[in-house]
Amino acid sequence: MKGIFIALEGPDGSGKSTIMKKIMDYFKDKKVEFVGTREPGGTEIGEDIRKIILDRKNKHMAAETEALLYAASRGQHVHEKILPALKMGKVVICERFILSSLAYQGVGRELGIEEVRIINDFAIRGIRPDLTLFFDVDPEETLNRKTKKMGGDRLEKEGVEFHREVYHGYKKLLQKYPDNIKIIDATQDVEKVFEQCIYNIENTLKNKEE
Amino acid sequence: MKGIFIALEGPDGSGKSTIMKKIMDYFKDKKVEFVGTREPGGTEIGEDIRKIILDRKNKHMAAETEALLYAASRGQHVHEKILPALKMGKVVICERFILSSLAYQGVGRELGIEEVRIINDFAIRGIRPDLTLFFDVDPEETLNRKTKKMGGDRLEKEGVEFHREVYHGYKKLLQKYPDNIKIIDATQDVEKVFEQCIYNIENTLKNKEE
Repeated sequence: MKGIFIALEGPDGSGKSTIMKKIMDYFKDKKVEFVGTREPGGTEIGEDIRKIILDRKNKHMAAETEALLYAASRGQHVHEKILPALKMGKVVICERFILSSLAYQGVGRELGIEEVRIINDFAIRGIRPDLTLFFDVDPEETLNRKTKKMGGDRLEKEGVEFHREVYHGYKKLLQKYPDNIKIIDATQDVEKVFEQCIYNIENTLKNKEE
Repeated sequence: MKGIFIALEGPDGSGKSTIMKKIMDYFKDKKVEFVGTREPGGTEIGEDIRKIILDRKNKHMAAETEALLYAASRGQHVHEKILPALKMGKVVICERFILSSLAYQGVGRELGIEEVRIINDFAIRGIRPDLTLFFDVDPEETLNRKTKKMGGDRLEKEGVEFHREVYHGYKKLLQKYPDNIKIIDATQDVEKVFEQCIYNIENTLKNKEE
């Protein structure tokens, strides 16, 4: 695979979208060919699945169904968008990927990390990010800020206890799968966070070239 | 579990829906408490998923995504509708269940029977039909009849070659998992097919009582 696959991960409200935009501007300025995308969604079919997952009326969705819908959306995303872009040598930057499912459904929903990994392996057939940037921030205050502002989707509306579990899940996963994951202190100011992201991205690009 | 779980399986156009109605009338007359349902769908969330699966515009859906969406719908169906009914001692009759996924996605889409079984086991947590009635009929002519009449959904519109593969898949599965599956010759006239279904259903009810 000629391209580079970068995933942005972290709790809700950790600043992923803001940094995502800045990274895309950076690549635009450098005339690097890239694709910016997000999960759940990223394709037409994926966006339809996203609507079902995040719809606040679907309160009684089974945890297993939630995990399978994320995996279904991810499978489409990889086959239709991520893989073709990587084959063309592009940089792919994706907000949320498999680590989110392991943390939210594997740990937060208590379905088991290993069980959720298996259904995702079925979906993505061995595709893994070359670099995952984890935005580290205590989810409690950021979450309050976000749900107060916009009401929040079905996942955001889960209680603080759930998001604390997800955060601990992430921490566990960072120990379990340390390869290619860089932890960024997301409580720093935006420019500092952005700078550290670019530092890690440029290193990954350099290593790929060698 | 006090209730009885009956699945109707077979190629498109094998007469499942017609017999389903007759079985429900039979239970109504006998004042047996039952739930009649179908897959994909069967719940509000499941029907939303069904729309995505069968939508003719989604021609480029990845096979993995298709299999995961069926499993997601099935997980919701089991948790929200089938399990609660069985716990209340009801008879549940369901048009299509896990065998369809093994035949259509495992064999027809070439994803592998074992691989598709694993994601379904994740979805349904060990729930299996007490009786599966397989409606045996060569899919080629029934399919032509159905797609000519109504245009057909995304799965029905697949070529004859695909449906032949699915049919061979079913045959393979009947040998692999013979327990609790009864093969009904669906080329017989409707009354004959119905009679044989009721014979098998009554036997299963009797065995459960003993």
